Amino acid sequence: MNAMVKPDQAALGAVRAALQDLLGERLQTSAALCEQHANTATGRGTQAPDMVVFPLDTAEVSAIAKICWDHAVPLIPFGAGSSLEGQLNAPVGGVSIDMSRMDALREVHPEDMIAVVQPGLTRKRLNQELRHSGLTFPIDPGADASIGGMCATRASGTNAVRYGTMAENVLSLEVVMADGRIIRTGTRAIKSAAGYDLTRLMIGSEGTLGIITEVTLRLRGIPEETLGGVAVFPSLQAASEAVITMVQIGLDVGRVELLDVNQIRACNAYSKLELAEQPTLFFECAGTDASARDNARIFAEISEEHGASDIHWTADRDARNKLWRARHDAFWAALALRPGCKGLVSDACVPISKLADNILEAAKDLEARGLIGTILGHVGDGNFHVVLMTDPADAAERAEVDAFLKGITKRAQASGGTCTGEHGIGQGKMESLAAEVGPALEVMRALKAALDPKGILNPGKLFGELA
Amino acid sequence: MNAMVKPDQAALGAVRAALQDLLGERLQTSAALCEQHANTATGRGTQAPDMVVFPLDTAEVSAIAKICWDHAVPLIPFGAGSSLEGQLNAPVGGVSIDMSRMDALREVHPEDMIAVVQPGLTRKRLNQELRHSGLTFPIDPGADASIGGMCATRASGTNAVRYGTMAENVLSLEVVMADGRIIRTGTRAIKSAAGYDLTRLMIGSEGTLGIITEVTLRLRGIPEETLGGVAVFPSLQAASEAVITMVQIGLDVGRVELLDVNQIRACNAYSKLELAEQPTLFFECAGTDASARDNARIFAEISEEHGASDIHWTADRDARNKLWRARHDAFWAALALRPGCKGLVSDACVPISKLADNILEAAKDLEARGLIGTILGHVGDGNFHVVLMTDPADAAERAEVDAFLKGITKRAQASGGTCTGEHGIGQGKMESLAAEVGPALEVMRALKAALDPKGILNPGKLFGELA
Repeated sequence: MNAMVKPDQAALGAVRAALQDLLGERLQTSAALCEQHANTATGRGTQAPDMVVFPLDTAEVSAIAKICWDHAVPLIPFGAGSSLEGQLNAPVGGVSIDMSRMDALREVHPEDMIAVVQPGLTRKRLNQELRHSGLTFPIDPGADASIGGMCATRASGTNAVRYGTMAENVLSLEVVMADGRIIRTGTRAIKSAAGYDLTRLMIGSEGTLGIITEVTLRLRGIPEETLGGVAVFPSLQAASEAVITMVQIGLDVGRVELLDVNQIRACNAYSKLELAEQPTLFFECAGTDASARDNARIFAEISEEHGASDIHWTADRDARNKLWRARHDAFWAALALRPGCKGLVSDACVPISKLADNILEAAKDLEARGLIGTILGHVGDGNFHVVLMTDPADAAERAEVDAFLKGITKRAQASGGTCTGEHGIGQGKMESLAAEVGPALEVMRALKAALDPKGILNPGKLFGELA
Repeated sequence: MNAMVKPDQAALGAVRAALQDLLGERLQTSAALCEQHANTATGRGTQAPDMVVFPLDTAEVSAIAKICWDHAVPLIPFGAGSSLEGQLNAPVGGVSIDMSRMDALREVHPEDMIAVVQPGLTRKRLNQELRHSGLTFPIDPGADASIGGMCATRASGTNAVRYGTMAENVLSLEVVMADGRIIRTGTRAIKSAAGYDLTRLMIGSEGTLGIITEVTLRLRGIPEETLGGVAVFPSLQAASEAVITMVQIGLDVGRVELLDVNQIRACNAYSKLELAEQPTLFFECAGTDASARDNARIFAEISEEHGASDIHWTADRDARNKLWRARHDAFWAALALRPGCKGLVSDACVPISKLADNILEAAKDLEARGLIGTILGHVGDGNFHVVLMTDPADAAERAEVDAFLKGITKRAQASGGTCTGEHGIGQGKMESLAAEVGPALEVMRALKAALDPKGILNPGKLFGELA
């Protein structure tokens, strides 16, 4: 495995000149733009690339890769900039390849429930464009991420308990490899046993194995009825245990999200709601009119058995959307609790039977350390987040935050879970990955070395191969 | 990529001696046993290994791999022997590693709906052992395959339309790599974004990247109600188009299987049934009592709209099981149409809108060539099979069969589908794979070379790298 070496000025100059020839004004080098294309969404430090390019099609992406390959200059794919673990940073500089101008919805095949999109298309715009088709792309990580970025980080979010993650909802990818070769990883068949699963290898590879240039997605029918509601619980434990029961009986719940007291307060303030300031489950049940109502009723019964009061739901779209907007704005609502701060977010995912313990331990540790944070999560998957509001300038606080985050990860791993359910490794969880996968890390490195022997694709991520 | 070289007698002798020391009587070299461990399930030729070993645990598998690695002798994993594309053949000899004695159900975690099994456990025995838990492992390829083999070939079958394939139902694998290293590919969390998806890379790799020694499976709750039934159609086209409509409206059908007239005749004879000799859909709807009945009713309505008569279903378990036993025995029933023959099975999987065309073209070609075959399939996935009864000694007929099978694959690929929905590539579809994936084949080869640089694991499969 090549160590990650900072490219010299001659190489960068040669790449700049070649990209200038290829792209003209679609090569940019201003410091402000470069900063914007590094990690910005969280409290992790910003390491800007040397330049940013804006390709318009796959052939240009291939030509860009070939130029960077020839000069061994790093190439960092950029979607919408919403990743949380420093995936977009350029620790040794190089070229950020901004896919936002490759944002076409190329094909919709309603009869096969398939769409073919360019990677820069965002999920909200995709669903906006699908609005008259009766179909939807259900994967919803909260942020208006790009489809390419969602593939690269194996995104999931609130709907995963029903529809799975990006790994279950992508049929095929077009990918530009490190040396510029263009491959296609699958077909439009819903299942396949044709050789290695390159689609799933690329999904979650965080731009380190190839650059995604086209995505063939599975779409879903919009359910006949969707009911959304809330259930207010006496304690975090009661809410967590209610979810465990629901999962164990196989309740067909579309979404189930936990918000702790602090997060409810933040949402009330930020989204102008008047939710009771207690641990709360937001839920959605979808299906036929009868099955949605059946499932909501069972949801309510289980919640009541676990002490919930004030359980109500609605089929009214505006009311539902207002509730779920609050959940979607949760990250920004949490940050607004402490103006001027930056957010850092944990991402443990554990077997469902271990969920309550992991959440309660996190709450206890949060309080013991005197940190400001909120707890929320896609609890139906065993995935929960703690959003920490931190002052980047306060080193002592940052150390405390880091220790807290490590505790979350260690407890999750000791429970048979993972350090990351959906945010990925990036720069932020490289040590955690090594601890989690053990000898499999060498297998991952071997795959990386096989497909990107010069190590130009998104260096310094996943493996920590800093020189 | 190393070409596949036949190991010399000295290397084989050294391996035999070392395995003898390690395993004693669990090394076998009789010609009959070796023949049994090569491909036997279909009309493809048999290429026996030089010896067969029966490890008892992961440490032994690791030691066996190390011995083969040191002497560059091929190692071919063997599960239950039910693969259909020559996956178990040993074209240059070597060691067949029979996993049948590693067949323990190690752990069941009902609260997390997870089981941990050894690879030699068969799916029927797994479900037999789970019978008092209220849980089931739903992936059902028909044959009583081993769980390890089902992982290796990315098996799916009749339940995939509801539950997905092995790729969606395995959380983690323990794998012995070519050089004997032992890795674990995942955790018990239901989802993860922790690095490359080694689980999905191993699933479907047909024993060419590693030897699976333990599998962590997702289990499912047994539905409250399961209704099974049949609908009889006036034509193949009408039956196919009914299925297309069901898929497109998102009907929650548990299983939907098409059988053509010849297959119905075969099943009537073999399973002693009295089904009407017309194209027939077998179906199952499962869920709550209300939702199963709702869905069966919608199934019947759509079937009627497409001209079906004689639609009936039952909740009675014995009656259901008798129907589905007929479907499960379909392969053997088809073979019984022509005593002494061998079976060869096509496995195209196409986007659902192309299903009717592909099936009708296959039926037409079958008739035009005067071949004896039946058509059946997991049509909810766009996956269908033609079972051909061939006389292995008749070269002219075999040429006709091969041409027919190539036609099926070409039409599927031209429809945006794949040459194999669930049987894999093995030796039988190497040309088809190359045609289907194009430049991605070189990426697959690079992965193979990275993880098995000596090419000892199941050589001569997938890529056709015969020397």
